[in-house]
Amino acid sequence: MSVYEILQKWHVDDYRVIDLAALEEITLGASILATGGGGDPDIGFLWAKKVLERGKEVVMIDAKYVPDDIMVTAPGCLGAPVVLTEKPPSEQVLTNAIDTLQCYTGRKIEATIPIECGGVNSILAYAAAAEYGVPVIDADGMNRAFPQLNMTSWATHGSNATPAVSADNSGAVTVIDTKEDDAMAEDICRKVAMSYGGISWVTIYPLSGRQVKETSVLGSQSIAWEVGKAVMKARREHLRPIAELKKVLKETRDVPCYDVFEGKIVDISRDFGSEANRGFSMGRITMEGINGYKGHTAHLNFQNEWLIVRVDGAVKCLPPDLIAILDTDTGEPIRSDIMKYGYRGTIVLIPAHERMRTPKGIEIFGPRGFGYDLDYVPVENINE
Amino acid sequence: MSVYEILQKWHVDDYRVIDLAALEEITLGASILATGGGGDPDIGFLWAKKVLERGKEVVMIDAKYVPDDIMVTAPGCLGAPVVLTEKPPSEQVLTNAIDTLQCYTGRKIEATIPIECGGVNSILAYAAAAEYGVPVIDADGMNRAFPQLNMTSWATHGSNATPAVSADNSGAVTVIDTKEDDAMAEDICRKVAMSYGGISWVTIYPLSGRQVKETSVLGSQSIAWEVGKAVMKARREHLRPIAELKKVLKETRDVPCYDVFEGKIVDISRDFGSEANRGFSMGRITMEGINGYKGHTAHLNFQNEWLIVRVDGAVKCLPPDLIAILDTDTGEPIRSDIMKYGYRGTIVLIPAHERMRTPKGIEIFGPRGFGYDLDYVPVENINE
Repeated sequence: MSVYEILQKWHVDDYRVIDLAALEEITLGASILATGGGGDPDIGFLWAKKVLERGKEVVMIDAKYVPDDIMVTAPGCLGAPVVLTEKPPSEQVLTNAIDTLQCYTGRKIEATIPIECGGVNSILAYAAAAEYGVPVIDADGMNRAFPQLNMTSWATHGSNATPAVSADNSGAVTVIDTKEDDAMAEDICRKVAMSYGGISWVTIYPLSGRQVKETSVLGSQSIAWEVGKAVMKARREHLRPIAELKKVLKETRDVPCYDVFEGKIVDISRDFGSEANRGFSMGRITMEGINGYKGHTAHLNFQNEWLIVRVDGAVKCLPPDLIAILDTDTGEPIRSDIMKYGYRGTIVLIPAHERMRTPKGIEIFGPRGFGYDLDYVPVENINE
Repeated sequence: MSVYEILQKWHVDDYRVIDLAALEEITLGASILATGGGGDPDIGFLWAKKVLERGKEVVMIDAKYVPDDIMVTAPGCLGAPVVLTEKPPSEQVLTNAIDTLQCYTGRKIEATIPIECGGVNSILAYAAAAEYGVPVIDADGMNRAFPQLNMTSWATHGSNATPAVSADNSGAVTVIDTKEDDAMAEDICRKVAMSYGGISWVTIYPLSGRQVKETSVLGSQSIAWEVGKAVMKARREHLRPIAELKKVLKETRDVPCYDVFEGKIVDISRDFGSEANRGFSMGRITMEGINGYKGHTAHLNFQNEWLIVRVDGAVKCLPPDLIAILDTDTGEPIRSDIMKYGYRGTIVLIPAHERMRTPKGIEIFGPRGFGYDLDYVPVENINE
C-alpha cells in the first residue's frame, strides 16, 4: 500500500508533502528547539535527502486523522551526539531496527512520529516514513530535545517506550521489552549504545493511534517548520532572526520568549569518563558578556542539551523549559557537542509545552530529575 | 510431542532418566567442577525438584543421537552469584526467556544443553528440558564454570551465543542478537543483568544439533554425575572424598588431579564498585596452611570462579585449568560468593578439557583473557 492509499483509507483531506526545501526548514527549526542537543542536523537531513532522491515521498498529516488502533513508532538515534558525528549510520541500520520491531510485535507500522525536535531525530522519522510508504505525524514526544528516552510526554501520560529495538552498523540488534518500566528501558538502551561504541539506532514507543492523539505534543512539527521558515526568511531579508523567532512562537504557540544574554564562550569543561556521563555529552560552559551584556557572566550546564542557565549567578531557566544559544546574526543554533572557545551567541529562553509541564513531567525531567537540588520555576515567572 | 516420542523419532536406544537422587549427585558434581563459582546449587536443585514434583520427567541423552538440523538452547542465569542468593527467580522467568527465543527465531527448541558445569546452570538445563518435554544433552560448553558467556568451547569453535534472551522477575525481556560478535553479546548481557538489579535469566547459544556435536565438551554431564556419585559414596562409606575424586577423574577423563594445599581462609578482599567488577563477584583470598602445610601460604584470585592459585608465591594453576577448594572431610566445595574467614579446605587442581585448551580458548579465557600478564602453562606441567 502506498502512502496515498493510506491517506484515502483514513479520509485525510489535508496533508503536506515535505519536499527538500521543507526538510531544510524543518531541520533548522528542530535544531533551534533542540536546546543545544539533537546531534548534527546534516546527518538527518542528508539521510532524508537520499531517500527523496530515490523517488520516495514524505507526507505529513495531522494526528487527528490517525485511527485509534494502528501501530506507530518513533525511530531515531540514541547516544552521545559527539560520537554520532564520528560514526555516521549505515543505510540499513534504521530499517533493521524497524523490521525487527515489526517481527517482534507481529504488526506493521502505519505511521511514524518524531521522538523529539532535534536535528537528527525529527528528520529520521520523516526518512523512515518515506522508506516504509507511511505518513509522518505532525507531533512528537517533547517539542524540544532531551537526553533520555523516558523524558517524553508519552511516558509521563502513560504510553510506554517498549518494545523497542536498538541496532548498530555491524548488524547487531537488541530488542528491549521492559513493560511499564521506561526508566529501565532507558537504562538498557543507554548501556546497549555504549556496547555498540557510543551510538545506537533505535525505534521506540510503539504507540497506538489513540496514544498518539492523547499523549503527544500535537502540532510540534508545524511549530518547528514555522520556526525554520522564519529564521530562513530573516537571513534572506536581513531581518533580526531572534526577533522573528519570538514573533513566530507568539503566533504558533502564544508563548513569550526571552533573550537574556549575549556573549562569547570563554570556558568549556567536559566531564569525560565519570560513571554518570557514560553515553552522554556532559559538562558546563562559561560565557562572557558582549555588546549590551559587557561585564556580565553566564554559566550553562549541559547533558547533551543545555539544562540550566545562570546569569551573574541567578538562575534564568530550568528544565523542561528550552534554552537556545543562537548566532545573533544568522539564528544558527550552537550545539553542546561541537561548541568551541570563542563562539558568540544570544541565549534565548522558551517556555516548555504544557504537556511537558505536568507534575510527573517535572519529577522526571525537571531540575531534580537531572540531580539538581532546585525547584522548578517556569521561565515566565523568572523573567517577566 | 512428549520426550519419549522425540527419542523414538531420533532412534535413541539408550537414555537415562534423571530422578531426584541423580539430580542431587549431578548438582554436587557440577558444583565441584564449578571452581568456586556457579552460584548456590540449592537454587538449581530446588527448581528441578519442583518440576519433577509436577510430574515432568528429565531424560538425558548422548549428543550422538541429536539430529543435525534441530535447535538446541542453553538456559541459565548470568550475573553475580552473590545477588542470585538474594533474588531467587520467579517460576516463569526461564520459560519467558525460552518462549521469546522461540518467537524471535520462529523455531521450537528440541533439546537443552547446560552452558557450564555449575550448581545452578547445569541443573536449569535439566529443569527446562523437563518443562518443554525435550531431552537434555550429555555435554556442555565448558566442563567447568566461567564468568562470561563467551568463554565456551562453542564460541572458540565458531558457534555463536546469539540470538539470546535475557529476562527478569518483573517480566522484562531483552533479545540480544550480535551475529558473530560474542564478546559484544557478553557485554550487553552483563549490562542488562546490571539494569535488572544484578542477575538475569537467560537462554543463549541457539545451537544446531550439528554444532552441539562438533563444538561442545561431550559427555561432561556424565563426568559431573560420576564426580557427585563418588563424593557421596565417600561420605557414606567414610572414605576420603578427594582421593575418590582423583580416582573418578582418572577413570572418566584419564587426567591426573593435584591436591596442592590445605589451609584456612585468613583474609578476603572483595572488589566492590569498581568499573571492572560490575556484574561479577571479584577479589582475592589468602589461606594459611594447616596440617601438612603449616607455615605455608596460598593466594587465590577470583572473578565469580577461582582463577589463579599461588602457593608461597609460586603459581600452581592458571585458567582454564580448574581450581576447587573442597572441605577435606566432606568434599563439599567452598564457593567464592559465600566463603568466610576461617573456612578450611584442600585446594584441588584439575586439567581443563582439551576443547577448552585451544589457542583461541587460551586467548579468550587463559590468564591474559582475564587481564593477567602471565603465559598459560598447563597444570600438569607445573605440578608433575
